[in-house]
Amino acid sequence: MPQNMLVFAGSSHPALAQKICSQLGLELGRSTIHRFTNQNIKVKLEENVRGADTFVVQTACPPLSDGIIELLILIDALRHASAGRVTAVLPYYPYVRSDKKDEPRISITARLMADLLETAGADRVLTMDLHSPQIHGFFRIPVDHLTATGVLCAHFLERGVSDWVLVAPDAGEVKDAGRYAKRLDIPLAVIDKRRYGDDEQARAIHIIGEVAGKHALVVDDEVATAGTLCETVRILLGHGASTVTAGVVHAVLSGQAPERVRTSPLAELVVTDTVPIPPERSCDKIRVLSVAHLFAQAIERIHDGRSVSALF
Amino acid sequence: MPQNMLVFAGSSHPALAQKICSQLGLELGRSTIHRFTNQNIKVKLEENVRGADTFVVQTACPPLSDGIIELLILIDALRHASAGRVTAVLPYYPYVRSDKKDEPRISITARLMADLLETAGADRVLTMDLHSPQIHGFFRIPVDHLTATGVLCAHFLERGVSDWVLVAPDAGEVKDAGRYAKRLDIPLAVIDKRRYGDDEQARAIHIIGEVAGKHALVVDDEVATAGTLCETVRILLGHGASTVTAGVVHAVLSGQAPERVRTSPLAELVVTDTVPIPPERSCDKIRVLSVAHLFAQAIERIHDGRSVSALF
Amino acid sequence: MPQNMLVFAGSSHPALAQKICSQLGLELGRSTIHRFTNQNIKVKLEENVRGADTFVVQTACPPLSDGIIELLILIDALRHASAGRVTAVLPYYPYVRSDKKDEPRISITARLMADLLETAGADRVLTMDLHSPQIHGFFRIPVDHLTATGVLCAHFLERGVSDWVLVAPDAGEVKDAGRYAKRLDIPLAVIDKRRYGDDEQARAIHIIGEVAGKHALVVDDEVATAGTLCETVRILLGHGASTVTAGVVHAVLSGQAPERVRTSPLAELVVTDTVPIPPERSCDKIRVLSVAHLFAQAIERIHDGRSVSALF
Amino acid sequence: MPQNMLVFAGSSHPALAQKICSQLGLELGRSTIHRFTNQNIKVKLEENVRGADTFVVQTACPPLSDGIIELLILIDALRHASAGRVTAVLPYYPYVRSDKKDEPRISITARLMADLLETAGADRVLTMDLHSPQIHGFFRIPVDHLTATGVLCAHFLERGVSDWVLVAPDAGEVKDAGRYAKRLDIPLAVIDKRRYGDDEQARAIHIIGEVAGKHALVVDDEVATAGTLCETVRILLGHGASTVTAGVVHAVLSGQAPERVRTSPLAELVVTDTVPIPPERSCDKIRVLSVAHLFAQAIERIHDGRSVSALF
Amino acid sequence: MPQNMLVFAGSSHPALAQKICSQLGLELGRSTIHRFTNQNIKVKLEENVRGADTFVVQTACPPLSDGIIELLILIDALRHASAGRVTAVLPYYPYVRSDKKDEPRISITARLMADLLETAGADRVLTMDLHSPQIHGFFRIPVDHLTATGVLCAHFLERGVSDWVLVAPDAGEVKDAGRYAKRLDIPLAVIDKRRYGDDEQARAIHIIGEVAGKHALVVDDEVATAGTLCETVRILLGHGASTVTAGVVHAVLSGQAPERVRTSPLAELVVTDTVPIPPERSCDKIRVLSVAHLFAQAIERIHDGRSVSALF
Amino acid sequence: MPQNMLVFAGSSHPALAQKICSQLGLELGRSTIHRFTNQNIKVKLEENVRGADTFVVQTACPPLSDGIIELLILIDALRHASAGRVTAVLPYYPYVRSDKKDEPRISITARLMADLLETAGADRVLTMDLHSPQIHGFFRIPVDHLTATGVLCAHFLERGVSDWVLVAPDAGEVKDAGRYAKRLDIPLAVIDKRRYGDDEQARAIHIIGEVAGKHALVVDDEVATAGTLCETVRILLGHGASTVTAGVVHAVLSGQAPERVRTSPLAELVVTDTVPIPPERSCDKIRVLSVAHLFAQAIERIHDGRSVSALF
Repeated sequence: MPQNMLVFAGSSHPALAQKICSQLGLELGRSTIHRFTNQNIKVKLEENVRGADTFVVQTACPPLSDGIIELLILIDALRHASAGRVTAVLPYYPYVRSDKKDEPRISITARLMADLLETAGADRVLTMDLHSPQIHGFFRIPVDHLTATGVLCAHFLERGVSDWVLVAPDAGEVKDAGRYAKRLDIPLAVIDKRRYGDDEQARAIHIIGEVAGKHALVVDDEVATAGTLCETVRILLGHGASTVTAGVVHAVLSGQAPERVRTSPLAELVVTDTVPIPPERSCDKIRVLSVAHLFAQAIERIHDGRSVSALF
Repeated sequence: MPQNMLVFAGSSHPALAQKICSQLGLELGRSTIHRFTNQNIKVKLEENVRGADTFVVQTACPPLSDGIIELLILIDALRHASAGRVTAVLPYYPYVRSDKKDEPRISITARLMADLLETAGADRVLTMDLHSPQIHGFFRIPVDHLTATGVLCAHFLERGVSDWVLVAPDAGEVKDAGRYAKRLDIPLAVIDKRRYGDDEQARAIHIIGEVAGKHALVVDDEVATAGTLCETVRILLGHGASTVTAGVVHAVLSGQAPERVRTSPLAELVVTDTVPIPPERSCDKIRVLSVAHLFAQAIERIHDGRSVSALF
Repeated sequence: MPQNMLVFAGSSHPALAQKICSQLGLELGRSTIHRFTNQNIKVKLEENVRGADTFVVQTACPPLSDGIIELLILIDALRHASAGRVTAVLPYYPYVRSDKKDEPRISITARLMADLLETAGADRVLTMDLHSPQIHGFFRIPVDHLTATGVLCAHFLERGVSDWVLVAPDAGEVKDAGRYAKRLDIPLAVIDKRRYGDDEQARAIHIIGEVAGKHALVVDDEVATAGTLCETVRILLGHGASTVTAGVVHAVLSGQAPERVRTSPLAELVVTDTVPIPPERSCDKIRVLSVAHLFAQAIERIHDGRSVSALF
Repeated sequence: MPQNMLVFAGSSHPALAQKICSQLGLELGRSTIHRFTNQNIKVKLEENVRGADTFVVQTACPPLSDGIIELLILIDALRHASAGRVTAVLPYYPYVRSDKKDEPRISITARLMADLLETAGADRVLTMDLHSPQIHGFFRIPVDHLTATGVLCAHFLERGVSDWVLVAPDAGEVKDAGRYAKRLDIPLAVIDKRRYGDDEQARAIHIIGEVAGKHALVVDDEVATAGTLCETVRILLGHGASTVTAGVVHAVLSGQAPERVRTSPLAELVVTDTVPIPPERSCDKIRVLSVAHLFAQAIERIHDGRSVSALF
Repeated sequence: MPQNMLVFAGSSHPALAQKICSQLGLELGRSTIHRFTNQNIKVKLEENVRGADTFVVQTACPPLSDGIIELLILIDALRHASAGRVTAVLPYYPYVRSDKKDEPRISITARLMADLLETAGADRVLTMDLHSPQIHGFFRIPVDHLTATGVLCAHFLERGVSDWVLVAPDAGEVKDAGRYAKRLDIPLAVIDKRRYGDDEQARAIHIIGEVAGKHALVVDDEVATAGTLCETVRILLGHGASTVTAGVVHAVLSGQAPERVRTSPLAELVVTDTVPIPPERSCDKIRVLSVAHLFAQAIERIHDGRSVSALF
Repeated sequence: MPQNMLVFAGSSHPALAQKICSQLGLELGRSTIHRFTNQNIKVKLEENVRGADTFVVQTACPPLSDGIIELLILIDALRHASAGRVTAVLPYYPYVRSDKKDEPRISITARLMADLLETAGADRVLTMDLHSPQIHGFFRIPVDHLTATGVLCAHFLERGVSDWVLVAPDAGEVKDAGRYAKRLDIPLAVIDKRRYGDDEQARAIHIIGEVAGKHALVVDDEVATAGTLCETVRILLGHGASTVTAGVVHAVLSGQAPERVRTSPLAELVVTDTVPIPPERSCDKIRVLSVAHLFAQAIERIHDGRSVSALF
């Protein structure tokens, strides 16, 4: 086991990296990351890492490609600087939804990311709420896979969930919805949406289960443009739900998401801090729960050789 | 592109291999597979394979471990005999359900199988209805992933599905169920089962959606012990379904499955021939649809360098 | 060097694994190995192995393929559970006699086994009396190769070998026979058998050297069906040997071996416990010497970083 | 040799890709590259590539990281779509100047790029004027390395170079300068600049060789911010050069380069089209020579298995 | 299959390479191999090899290390020059006797050689009479393994072998001796030599079998210093053999071998031309049989994709 | 970090290895290297290396190929003997000038050497003054790259450099010359040599900068045949330089170098001891500065996990 622990951070989410280090009682590892006018990124580690147990915190957020390249360069620099072990800490894993070949001649990019990380020199990965648990199998190096389910459920249970119903916005989402419904001990309903042919409008919507007069909760691993989420809110209110609340791990909130969330009749959007939300893209409806303590505990356990599964 | 095509078969499912070859208008590649009294397996290719485009058909069925080892030895023999290309044809992929780490300190064995196949020397894989589409990403070699959905749906559509409902036996199965429901254009219902604590009996069952008075159809990628299937039948009939039919791709039918199917009030179990069913484990209720033509067409297209996705 | 030592066992030979652990003063590492009705094997490590120096004991014996797959899954589970080092302890190496390509288009399966072990994640191998010492070179990972020669010779020397002759049953076996003959300081003789054409019967047998009136000793690395052994006994007695004793490391004893040994005029068959002999396949003539202490000492030395060659 | 040739292009430099295809008499391979609001890039190949000899044209230019990720995804998609061979065509190689470890604990990112390309699935690389010829050795796959020296020299020779002098702006650049001076058959001079301590201003400048009254030519493999170039112009004019012209292969022209070039007394900046120059960053002084024909010829020769070195 | 065949040769054995090419009706591939005064070797291929089916002939003989390095450089040059396939043709494989770890802490150098060849870029190997057939398993690339047994036996049978006996000079050599004895249909005898302790002189020698009055034939895969061979001759003549002839594949004849052979009462030493014998190290007693036709036929068959085993 | 440090040496430069060990206060690791009459090299490690932090000192010098093979065998033996870490210490890196493909169809042999070292089992490399810093990027394992610049400059500064000029003998050498000139704070001059066509004699020589009446210093990373060096001396004296001194890191001194140096009007040749100079090839003009202390300090720092860059 390497002896001293060093946590470095890419430039994607300094607040989270800082929070993790504070919980660990560590200073962030010293490094400088420079971006030249030709957009080349230069990473320099400013302290000796030989034999050290190093962790690199980088989450997937804009500018996304820069973040990935920066991460790979950081890992490469650590390996060639003789780090004893390099753990890539990826609170929100890049390209996590590109995990299957649902059309011919596309890339399973989540798998490509795994390959690139191994090539650059990562010895292990620590991440959270992968879109599908099978992504774990894309790696030949050990992966510790945290979940924010506990943090989100604790939040909802604390405020009380009587008269709530968990609604899966699509047949494809029922599995995760079911997991939350069981943990919160509330009923489950499903929105069954079908398209006919190529006509975007020719669509039938059925609600399977009861939502009328209930507080609907929608959960997901990520919210990107919030288009589906806001449409779900409309459907549920249209079918008599009294309110709609959403619980999501990764607050991607890209494109029109901020405006959509602001103007939607959605009651509240509860998210975690795996992805930074710039103040101008946030609003009062968005509530952020921190998962920094989970990452700090996992890093400590990885370093000490203790089981991480106890955190799940 | 290698020029001559040769299809070899392991000893798992000679009938399917033969059927595929017949459709291709080919003789099976000559090989002898011998099992010594010490259980060592010896494979000898009985014809020259140098530069040939070779395919090895082996499905996952009892004796399972022998079939896997036999497959790996066959591939190794082909590679060292200078085959131009080796495609592992795996109608039912081994350990397909071991695709995630849902408990600590277990193996994602579907991924291990992918690694073993690559190590032995497979250049590509042709398989059908993987339990999750992400398994595709376990491979660094190209994979062609067929589906029997079309064959099964065509069968049900032919007999007529008015007044039918597609029932997902569990929240975790709704995704696939939804896919079939859309294709058959019938409604969807979900059985929401929950356990409380460790008590196997303390369980609540809700039906989300309408099943009373309808013909219920249950679909799945595989049926193993048929325990869940037969319980689903009981629940559905108990909630007023008029009949229950099942459509399943891989007819594993292990353990008590034959007896359970025979004695269950299940109307019919429609399966494919990706897994052989010994006559003594079959019964009148089981109807087998062949997918040999899909494999034959895919092999032909792979050999010719034409797109396989046209078959989906 | 990893700090704590953990010895896990596959289900092939629990008695030997237990004996090794007793000698080491250790409890066996806790794991559960479950075999489903569909013959899938599931391994779960029941204790934390992060950073540990782990050893997996599995010998090649029926059900052979299950044992190999189980071993690969165990190693895979250890690697992904972040074991510090994984040593495969293989008292009898699988497919050890498939070590060359003596016919075209076959697999050198002993080499394939080495590749599979490395792919699954083995960092090193500890084994005993490989059929040929060159198999060592099949591995890119370090191998410690023990021998039971000392244990067997000590046994024969203790009972006295005056008037004994070491007989090689075939020209191909003289090398090993010579090694034993020198160690026991007894003369050597060779049975020179030749076949003519394909006629199994048209065979000439010559004894090169003196056997008449002597106690003949036949040695080998393994005894499988005992067919050759029992024929050798008949030939030697027919040429005037007073008795025939056999010394063999790996007691495979497959097929008709138990009956053959029982009914043969062979005086005694001395073997080791690298392979378990079910009571119903054993008999009074078979004497088992334990090599558990050699494995225990080797494991201890590997763990401590001391030389293992001192045990040879 | 794969039979049909397909040239795909990333979104970095469509004009060059189009020009190359025109010269080859080919349509660009059909693909769609979509960038989601969450900045994920999705590549879909819109035609069958099985067994094809594919080329992917992508140059290093802003947005740089997006271009690299897009390239890796394109290559990954080609490999998994069973392309027969994938050649990465990189007119300007990314991170080409990050080719050594001139400070401790940095990444040799040009080498990392080579590793990432191989991991994604590139079978070979075609590129132009690498900053140092040793970068060739960063690859385990074959590389064809073109040069624009001939195109640039032909241009200068055509307009006449009597009374010209080739000036190396720094000791580190004399090697390449010498190569051009010999080819143009003009004298060589060197600017010897030295810094003292950390003081940016405390600097001594010597001109080694004759420049007064001559037309000075400055050459380089790339021009980025043009800071050094414009300073060189000032020094040379200050030492009596009558005019200063620059010849550069890769027109990166980042940061303040456009303004600097416009306002500098530089007579002309001759570049190639390996990097696109947006109209708003160009000016009358910049003259662009095309190297598309070199890439087209090289692609044709690679496809046909003819020597590419004939193009140098 | 690559289309055009090119045979290159290292500088170890030009006569054999030339002979092989003559039989193939080919000119040797043009290359220049230069050795600088600093002993660096430079290889330049003087013709285009893109996509070609290339063969490199190099045998193990003095200067041995130079020959190995030259071979690796040749293969590397071929790979980076885009050869379609590279087959290393090694008539006498380097370090062939270093095939096991018979002492602790030594290298299995025959295995290391296999790894180096694969690393340099060899796609396959063609060789002859490896010291042990297990060496085949050291390779992950296909190997064709020729034997000169047929050529040697044909020679002896032609001159007549009545009243001959095949003598194995050591227990360790009986296996191969037996193979020749059967093929020639002559009796077998064994020299059983034993050392006691470290005293080189304290040795007992027994002849097992009959040699008196017979023509003794001794065979081996290689003759190096000829020390053992000449001692065997003395022992056999001392035990009454009328003459002693030797048949050996690889005529290494190193150190004092030439003098020993000249002065020994050995009747004849029949060898092949896998290793060149400089005229000054040869003598009248040495008879060389060519195996060039076997290599030529094998190369042709490999190129055409026909089975090579037919040559055994 | 492995605990005990062991330094082994190949047979290339025992004096340097001994000096390094003396500085470290260590005995050389015990090993025997034997060369058989067939030129096979056998390495045996004579002490236990399990888990140890091992270093192998081998420099590139005649017999060069033997030295390389010996090094690879040593590393292979260490790896298979379970060394904890193997660092190849290469004071003068083999084939260091073969670092680019400046002609078609040659090998970048410096890169091949890197691959061979990794294949044999080296975990890291320690070397000095690579011909180009890009060679660092040929390795996927960490490299520590020392320089003798400080040792050479300290020597020249100590004797005084007023009235000296640093002369680059060729445009291609100005970069390194400039580095030394800056460090010594002396002016720079360049010899601009040009050939016309293939005529070796048709050559023009210009001196760019001032040399008349000055003490000229010529530096280089290596001196091989000394042909260029001695010609440079003649040119400089011919252009009025008062004396010429040379400073070179690696004293290869091959071929006619000793005689050339002796008979040249060169004042002094200052070199280091990275390459051994046999007494008969040395002379009074050659002054050797030791760099053993740099290697000793680097080895100590690598072992302790401290930064090596502090030594630059």
